[in-house]
Amino acid sequence: METVAIRNIKRADKAVIDGLRQVGVATAHEAQGRTGLLQPGLRPIYSACIAGSAITVLVHPGDNWMIHVALELCQPSDILVVACSSENTDGFFGDLLAESCRAQGVRGLVIDAGVRDTWDLIELQFPVWCRATHAKGTVKATLGAVNVPVVCAGRLVTPGDVVVADDDGVVIVERRRAAKTLAAAKERGQKEADKRKRLAAGELGLDIYKMRERLADAGLIYLDSPAEYEQYKNRD
Amino acid sequence: METVAIRNIKRADKAVIDGLRQVGVATAHEAQGRTGLLQPGLRPIYSACIAGSAITVLVHPGDNWMIHVALELCQPSDILVVACSSENTDGFFGDLLAESCRAQGVRGLVIDAGVRDTWDLIELQFPVWCRATHAKGTVKATLGAVNVPVVCAGRLVTPGDVVVADDDGVVIVERRRAAKTLAAAKERGQKEADKRKRLAAGELGLDIYKMRERLADAGLIYLDSPAEYEQYKNRD
Amino acid sequence: METVAIRNIKRADKAVIDGLRQVGVATAHEAQGRTGLLQPGLRPIYSACIAGSAITVLVHPGDNWMIHVALELCQPSDILVVACSSENTDGFFGDLLAESCRAQGVRGLVIDAGVRDTWDLIELQFPVWCRATHAKGTVKATLGAVNVPVVCAGRLVTPGDVVVADDDGVVIVERRRAAKTLAAAKERGQKEADKRKRLAAGELGLDIYKMRERLADAGLIYLDSPAEYEQYKNRD
Amino acid sequence: METVAIRNIKRADKAVIDGLRQVGVATAHEAQGRTGLLQPGLRPIYSACIAGSAITVLVHPGDNWMIHVALELCQPSDILVVACSSENTDGFFGDLLAESCRAQGVRGLVIDAGVRDTWDLIELQFPVWCRATHAKGTVKATLGAVNVPVVCAGRLVTPGDVVVADDDGVVIVERRRAAKTLAAAKERGQKEADKRKRLAAGELGLDIYKMRERLADAGLIYLDSPAEYEQYKNRD
Amino acid sequence: METVAIRNIKRADKAVIDGLRQVGVATAHEAQGRTGLLQPGLRPIYSACIAGSAITVLVHPGDNWMIHVALELCQPSDILVVACSSENTDGFFGDLLAESCRAQGVRGLVIDAGVRDTWDLIELQFPVWCRATHAKGTVKATLGAVNVPVVCAGRLVTPGDVVVADDDGVVIVERRRAAKTLAAAKERGQKEADKRKRLAAGELGLDIYKMRERLADAGLIYLDSPAEYEQYKNRD
Amino acid sequence: METVAIRNIKRADKAVIDGLRQVGVATAHEAQGRTGLLQPGLRPIYSACIAGSAITVLVHPGDNWMIHVALELCQPSDILVVACSSENTDGFFGDLLAESCRAQGVRGLVIDAGVRDTWDLIELQFPVWCRATHAKGTVKATLGAVNVPVVCAGRLVTPGDVVVADDDGVVIVERRRAAKTLAAAKERGQKEADKRKRLAAGELGLDIYKMRERLADAGLIYLDSPAEYEQYKNRD
Repeated sequence: METVAIRNIKRADKAVIDGLRQVGVATAHEAQGRTGLLQPGLRPIYSACIAGSAITVLVHPGDNWMIHVALELCQPSDILVVACSSENTDGFFGDLLAESCRAQGVRGLVIDAGVRDTWDLIELQFPVWCRATHAKGTVKATLGAVNVPVVCAGRLVTPGDVVVADDDGVVIVERRRAAKTLAAAKERGQKEADKRKRLAAGELGLDIYKMRERLADAGLIYLDSPAEYEQYKNRD
Repeated sequence: METVAIRNIKRADKAVIDGLRQVGVATAHEAQGRTGLLQPGLRPIYSACIAGSAITVLVHPGDNWMIHVALELCQPSDILVVACSSENTDGFFGDLLAESCRAQGVRGLVIDAGVRDTWDLIELQFPVWCRATHAKGTVKATLGAVNVPVVCAGRLVTPGDVVVADDDGVVIVERRRAAKTLAAAKERGQKEADKRKRLAAGELGLDIYKMRERLADAGLIYLDSPAEYEQYKNRD
Repeated sequence: METVAIRNIKRADKAVIDGLRQVGVATAHEAQGRTGLLQPGLRPIYSACIAGSAITVLVHPGDNWMIHVALELCQPSDILVVACSSENTDGFFGDLLAESCRAQGVRGLVIDAGVRDTWDLIELQFPVWCRATHAKGTVKATLGAVNVPVVCAGRLVTPGDVVVADDDGVVIVERRRAAKTLAAAKERGQKEADKRKRLAAGELGLDIYKMRERLADAGLIYLDSPAEYEQYKNRD
Repeated sequence: METVAIRNIKRADKAVIDGLRQVGVATAHEAQGRTGLLQPGLRPIYSACIAGSAITVLVHPGDNWMIHVALELCQPSDILVVACSSENTDGFFGDLLAESCRAQGVRGLVIDAGVRDTWDLIELQFPVWCRATHAKGTVKATLGAVNVPVVCAGRLVTPGDVVVADDDGVVIVERRRAAKTLAAAKERGQKEADKRKRLAAGELGLDIYKMRERLADAGLIYLDSPAEYEQYKNRD
Repeated sequence: METVAIRNIKRADKAVIDGLRQVGVATAHEAQGRTGLLQPGLRPIYSACIAGSAITVLVHPGDNWMIHVALELCQPSDILVVACSSENTDGFFGDLLAESCRAQGVRGLVIDAGVRDTWDLIELQFPVWCRATHAKGTVKATLGAVNVPVVCAGRLVTPGDVVVADDDGVVIVERRRAAKTLAAAKERGQKEADKRKRLAAGELGLDIYKMRERLADAGLIYLDSPAEYEQYKNRD
Repeated sequence: METVAIRNIKRADKAVIDGLRQVGVATAHEAQGRTGLLQPGLRPIYSACIAGSAITVLVHPGDNWMIHVALELCQPSDILVVACSSENTDGFFGDLLAESCRAQGVRGLVIDAGVRDTWDLIELQFPVWCRATHAKGTVKATLGAVNVPVVCAGRLVTPGDVVVADDDGVVIVERRRAAKTLAAAKERGQKEADKRKRLAAGELGLDIYKMRERLADAGLIYLDSPAEYEQYKNRD
């Protein structure tokens, strides 16, 4: 096992990070070419929207030791991203660690495992995306790693990547592509706002996106009634 | 694959539909002879209660093209019921489609797959029952079908069936049996209200339902204490 | 199958029960030596925190008959703990049974199966931890047992054990160890409050728990940068 | 609940049934327009390939009573298709029922639930597709239905439909379309045999299916090396 | 956490253990009043049938230390029953431990977690029932317990209980009831053999179990054809 | 979405690849510092052991187009590693593609999705590790990528990495570390063979690994009997 902790990582520009928070997960994901989404199994413990720089942590099942190591390496606006070497729903993180995160300026936690003291986390308004809430405690016996690339919920996370999380889940925006992704997201957002207005006014997607011809080419057949459909199914 | 869209379907009487909304999912399900329930995996994104006529949509994994086709065929008070040809949690439906649904008078969405822009859907107060919330987008490349019978979350849905959905899940009431089911549901609701009063006053189900004799016949044995139970277990 | 119902069980002291409610699930679990937690699959239908004495019920899939038998044997401050002989998500419990529970003074329900009439349960403010919400009804045809030891969500529950349930899940505190567990929990709570203050003030867990030396002994290596990490990985 | 048993159903032509067994599940599914497949959760207890007419059975969780009712209505070459009103893995079927099936000429069992006496079933060479093997017994207390349309593992099955099952799973071929589907399947099988020869000889699908132009139109970009890919990702 | 190892436990009579192996899991489960079955998630890595005395082991996720402690306390004919404090699929057991088990006369392993070196285990013909096969290794850092009562795959196992495992899964027969259960199982086996002969000769369960009257009483309605069923559904 | 295909990648030395096949998955995983294992959900369709160079493929749910693109870029001894942009169990790969793989010298397939024509794949003796077997076909409509880094079953795979797969699952050995990993694996294999001999002769792991002192230090308490354990639990 890798048992290293890397002290210094590069982070994206703060304005870019905050811009990505504004556009949200779904749009950032689209703007990055539909990449970077974590699997849908990670859910927020309460409705929240955050963005920050990834401090990655690799832990082992039932053992949260490395989260303590990671906390020292966090800067304000960072987000802890915790991957586990095998599927585990133990409560790796609770009120004490959340209080410590608050003190260090950490903006939230994304963990492919469980958390506990759920009620305290909500009272503290410390945002968490996790796989489970479970009171089961963990030990501090086995080393993992901090700030190495990890796979969390099916996606690669490199330390310093921008993490955006909201009710739709979590997306990882690569640090080097963050500014470009933000620009693309804003442009996309503009276009969507326009379309949304037209749809709200009653126009159909079929017309806005000019789908009718493509549907016909692809072979879509319109029938007038279920009776006609029965005939159609029994045709030769 | 079937690649048809049927324009005109029969719908149940509006008063019957609205009556079924009043009685709710659990009672409608009982009144229909305990049939028609979707599997419990579909959950509301926020607490809501709706009823309407089913516009059925068959889509393929990762492809939401047919939802656009379906929207043109919706009338006010309809509900979109989307089945997928294999298990998939992609985000087939988001803020733009919800806005379009609103414009067409569609009352809600039941989808055996994922949705995205969750926060916008809640702000719009557009009710959705789904298997997942996931920002992942879909393509528009493969035809499915609209208004053919589909199996959604384990139950057959025929276009025009009445869909009732609330915090208990989703039930499909057959169009032809809708009036009868509503009548039975109201009768049942009346009886339950009476029982509920008696239970609230401290009467026991054992007495109200006259279960004591049946329990004895079935062989239930009352013991006074754990000690007596130990003796009972070690009897010859 | 065992088909018995035991009328009289011993319960823990009321003050101890109420004390355990104050400390909550996570702390009670720790204080009991990290034992007694139910698996994380049981979730509350709304945020609540309760403690009471376990009345255990063993039911069979799709059959809630024994819950009626159990209700007669409940006393005020009891909690129903329902185990099922195989995995099942049917709606074993709804508004009528909840009303009856209220009338008998039952404080809540923990069930390794489904419930229905979710909205009524919330309106009644009757706390429930369950595996699913599903409108599907059950029959009353097969006997199970009341107040025998059962395994519920992976943990043994003996009638009269103290059940504590909150947003973190459910923990079972053995009746005989309840007073001791409460004492240990209070002590632990005190220590944690102190640590929480220090962490909130910016101290690190690394220092409070004196982890630095142990981490070094275990072999943790600090590196300054990703570049240094690349070199480290390619060392001989 | 529906509590009926229908004695007489129409079946497909025996030669068609046996022909569909020859073509197998994957090809029959394709030939029927990619419809009719059960979900992949049903697996064979040993490698086998069968086809027959569906005798449908609707049971309730933990209760196999209706399988006995169904057996009397079976004819040689039938296949039992058992759907359950909620998810359940109990052992609904074991050595005694298999022996009885053998005596009635039933060719196999498809069940969206569990079976037991697995070893005996294999020794008897009685083919079974099921969701689980589990020794847990069932009761005979609640009526279901025989030979009504059911949804089994996500697909509608009408009594008399042709069931084809092999290592790839289970497909339901509609009785009325069975002959047409067989004809289409044979034609398809012929074409595939030809393609298989060409592929075995080293031709590529890209050429056989003339994909190169379509890939280019869709925007596929060939790059020579990972280095070129890095440049490509960082382009403006 | 409990961190004890108990050296001496009582075991059932060897003849009883071997007798229970003969009757198999399904029959032993029935004879014990349909209790004691582990959940169906534990599967054999190859087809085998064993019985022995339970040596219980409680481990923590990702840590197999206590299995080494347990091995010293095993006697010939024992079976290791390993429960984990939370869900985990790591490979707790491989070729080396299997070799050691062989040397101590241990008959097999039942583990609610993963194993590895699957091929070696099969070559050694060491029978294993487990939740997963996974090469992932474990550490030896955290104490658990040996020979305390544990819950394994949903059932309580007391050290010295008789474990019976075959293709149908695993059943735990309480040590004190083992002789009685064996006697009941033999009697049941005899009756089943008789019934099996009658069923093989073409008699129906409906007649052997005299179900026809009970079915009529319960309200089963026979209809002659699907057409009659349509009429029945549309009755008033 | 990335829509590129990279023609030329570096591969590990053939002798190293074949050496890693000899040591197998569990040992290679250990020798690489317990990294690189795919999640246990991917299972072989029949018992096999292979090693080769990874040709990575990124597909979208229900669409196998890119596998055709990948085949042209394969060399003898390569292994296809297919990741999907969301969870999907459709049958992406069947007899025709397997035949084509054989013709190109491809050694096997690792796919985080489904395959079909299972029986043909076994007859062809073409080794496959997959999440499901499902007859459902796929379309060829949406571009993905070939030979870009992908996450497959929870692990990062870079094109040219060495894939080792056997009954224990699949491990990815980084190309640059492959020779080192093989050397470490051989050394480890030697040590394990020695330990295995000693364990087979009846020595205990407790002694071979000198665990007794560490166990005592960690606080393990040996008790003589269950009675002593009861006393211990009730101590003050």
